[in-house]
Formats: sequence, structure tokens, C-alpha cells
Amino acid sequence: MCEVSPSIVISNETLVSIIVRSLIDKRLSIACAESCTGGLLTAGFVDYPGVSAVLAEGVVAYSNESKIARLGVTKQTLDKYGAVSAQTAAEMASGVAKTASAGVGISTTGIAGPGGGSYEKPVGLVYIGLSVNKRISTKELRLTGDRSAVRNKAVKLAMEFLLQSLKDI
Amino acid sequence: MCEVSPSIVISNETLVSIIVRSLIDKRLSIACAESCTGGLLTAGFVDYPGVSAVLAEGVVAYSNESKIARLGVTKQTLDKYGAVSAQTAAEMASGVAKTASAGVGISTTGIAGPGGGSYEKPVGLVYIGLSVNKRISTKELRLTGDRSAVRNKAVKLAMEFLLQSLKDI
Repeated sequence: MCEVSPSIVISNETLVSIIVRSLIDKRLSIACAESCTGGLLTAGFVDYPGVSAVLAEGVVAYSNESKIARLGVTKQTLDKYGAVSAQTAAEMASGVAKTASAGVGISTTGIAGPGGGSYEKPVGLVYIGLSVNKRISTKELRLTGDRSAVRNKAVKLAMEFLLQSLKDI
Repeated sequence: MCEVSPSIVISNETLVSIIVRSLIDKRLSIACAESCTGGLLTAGFVDYPGVSAVLAEGVVAYSNESKIARLGVTKQTLDKYGAVSAQTAAEMASGVAKTASAGVGISTTGIAGPGGGSYEKPVGLVYIGLSVNKRISTKELRLTGDRSAVRNKAVKLAMEFLLQSLKDI
């Protein structure tokens, strides 16, 4: 489990510009698969005018059917672990990287609220999935705040997770 | 060509809640295909907690390859009219409606700037495509402002175009 709040106080715009330059340096393209963030992560990348050099595509797979059809998430994974799980996040990230022929796939799946939470999976639980050159990693977040706050924090932490992972390769 | 500025002064949140209720009433699901808005339109819908009842999926098809592979836009259309054209917007909207099995498909394609504009297709030129029960319509927008302003105005006007179209059926 990771820290609840963003640890690096830099703007999304700065984060994205650093990420895009890093992706260009490493000759990697990127594709996004979003559930709870619903397009905000991809939109964050598209804020950066030069993003067309690296952005392959984004998919907002809000329903399970879309996760299966568009991203290749297996029904078995959804049945066994649920849509909000590290396993589903991992398959979303690897799935979008594969279908978009991108070096990097990044995904979000979580419970943004206000409804939909349970004792085991409360509102604010979000998983980030990352596939970098087919190496998969995931991160569990426990976020606080309203629907908008949860989604915006998830976007920022997903970007930070990606940036950290790019430093390691 | 339409007016440059939004004509109805209501918030995106209110617009979305009216649209979602209208879609539920008419038993229609919706799918989004975005280029220049890059996820902001889908994210605008996902702001509304009850959207899962109607939102099938969103696709950010930023590259031509993605428009062809994910949305079924034809290479002939892209070659003849360009990615930023009413024809491409129409194919994006009908394509995403078809692949997502949704009653409504809505698309955006345009030049958000700051670069990428030309005399014929200046920064701020945006096309909205709409497929409602397979009936296709498009709208040309000439928007002013910076990249962020163009994208946000395009989202709002796309929602208004959709709401108006839903009133007609």
C-alpha cells in the first residue's frame, strides 16, 4: 500500500512534460486504460502539446464488457478478483500496451464514490497498473476526499508511479 | 458553422446530469471517441456518479492508426479529408457507437494548438460528430483561446450538441 497523498509537490503539467521527455529519450510510446479516472489521465497527457510524439491511445473501459473486449482482461480475473483489484489493473495495463503496440501501458481502476464502496473495498481504493517493456507492476492507493478528489489524486499518483518506473530503466 | 461561444450558460455538471437522465429515459447507452479533447469529454461524463448506467466506453484515438484500428475510420477518409474534418468526425462517432454497441456515439477531432494550424485548418477548428440511433450529424466549431480553452469549449459544445439532438428524438 502506498502513501495516501502525493509526495512530490509538482504540478501535473510539469510531471507530464518530464514524463513525455523521458518517453521520447527512451523511444517508448504510451497507452492508457482508465476506469475510475474516466479519461482524466489521458487528458492530463494531452494537456502537453508535444504528446502526439508518444501517445498511442487511451481507452476508458468503464464497464466489465469494455475491459474484456477492448483490453483483453479475462473474465476469470474479473470474477475471481473483481474489477477493482491489482490483478485487473495489471491486465488492463498489459492489455492496452499490447493492443496499442505501445512500450508503456498505464491503467487505473478504483472506487471513486460516493457509492459503490464496501468494507473490503472502500471508496478511495484505487489500483494503478503499469506495463513497461512488458514488465508489470501495480500500486494500491487508499485515497480520501470526494469523487473529484479521489480521481484527481489517482491521476497524479499514477503519473508519479510512471515517472519513478521510467527512472529505473 | 456554429457560434463560437457556448450559448447556454449552464455548468458541465448540470449538462451531464440532464444528458444522463435523457439517455436513461430513452434507453440509450453512449460511447465517446476523442481526438483533440483527449479524454476530457469522457471524463466530463464520468464526473456524474450515475453514469455507469449509460456509459459504454471512451476511446482517445489521438493517432490516425488508432482512429483506423479502434474506430474503423477508413484510410481513404483520412487521406481525402484529413483527420480534422466533418467526415472523420462522422466516422469516429459511428465507429465507436458500433464497436461499443451503443445507441449514441459522440466524437471530437480538431486542432487545439498552439501548433498544427494552417490557413485552411486553423487552430481552434474542431468538428463534433454524433451518431444517435445510427443517424449521423456533425458540427463545425471555430473556437478561440489557448489549448486548454479550445479543448474545454469543445467539450461543452459537444455536450450541448448532444443534448439538443436528444431533444429531437
